[in-house]
Amino acid sequence: MTGSRSREMYEIRPIGRVESSLHDRGAAPKQGFEGAPEAWLVFDPTVAKGMRDLEVGAEIYVFTWLHQAQRDVLVVHPRDDPTNPETGVFSTRSQDRPNPIGLHRVRIVAVDGTRVRVQDLEAFDGTPIVDVKPVLPQGR
Amino acid sequence: MTGSRSREMYEIRPIGRVESSLHDRGAAPKQGFEGAPEAWLVFDPTVAKGMRDLEVGAEIYVFTWLHQAQRDVLVVHPRDDPTNPETGVFSTRSQDRPNPIGLHRVRIVAVDGTRVRVQDLEAFDGTPIVDVKPVLPQGR
Repeated sequence: MTGSRSREMYEIRPIGRVESSLHDRGAAPKQGFEGAPEAWLVFDPTVAKGMRDLEVGAEIYVFTWLHQAQRDVLVVHPRDDPTNPETGVFSTRSQDRPNPIGLHRVRIVAVDGTRVRVQDLEAFDGTPIVDVKPVLPQGR
Repeated sequence: MTGSRSREMYEIRPIGRVESSLHDRGAAPKQGFEGAPEAWLVFDPTVAKGMRDLEVGAEIYVFTWLHQAQRDVLVVHPRDDPTNPETGVFSTRSQDRPNPIGLHRVRIVAVDGTRVRVQDLEAFDGTPIVDVKPVLPQGR
């Protein structure tokens, strides 16, 4: 890849924000199924048409932008445990990585206008949401 | 959300690129498990340390940036079929959406330096790769 290519970039713009009782990175569980609370996905009114078909009971992927992550990190000790051997970030779910996209698989428990309540979201309060996709019937 | 908040943006920078026999958007299957070919993930040398632990047999999520997508689209006819009712994009896997992140769950079949060959990747040739994460043992 040439030097000019590696400076290529795109703009990612939040479509909403997480509203959660989790208030700092240290307190958040590593994965949603490890005991994360319910939380609200609060969509920006400008994308209301895009979220109008989200329904209670549906399983979705929520994509967040982990804006407090360190983007210059390429290897980590998994789960912040120094006894785990250093591992390339693309083989881990570390928040610290070149493009800190968070991937969260959650179930919708309530919809109130442009607010969607979900189970087991490990993102903390204020985290930008950048995309939402359905989990397909094949479970993928 | 205030007007100033909705203009917030982040920079997403490719970490590599897809090398595939799929050469245009019309020819690509809608989902990888619908008959997509094998393809190479070609990582930028600057992130080589981050991909060093990717291993043959591992199942991974590949995140792409669908740079040819239309970002002002909020509702679509799913699967480009006009007989399907218009649906909010966050309930579909449409490429056209505010932040066109592609999510691809694939298995690694070969590793050659900073090139990783995977099965069933429906992204077309030249698509920017922005992140890679492991599928967790729980299948999530």
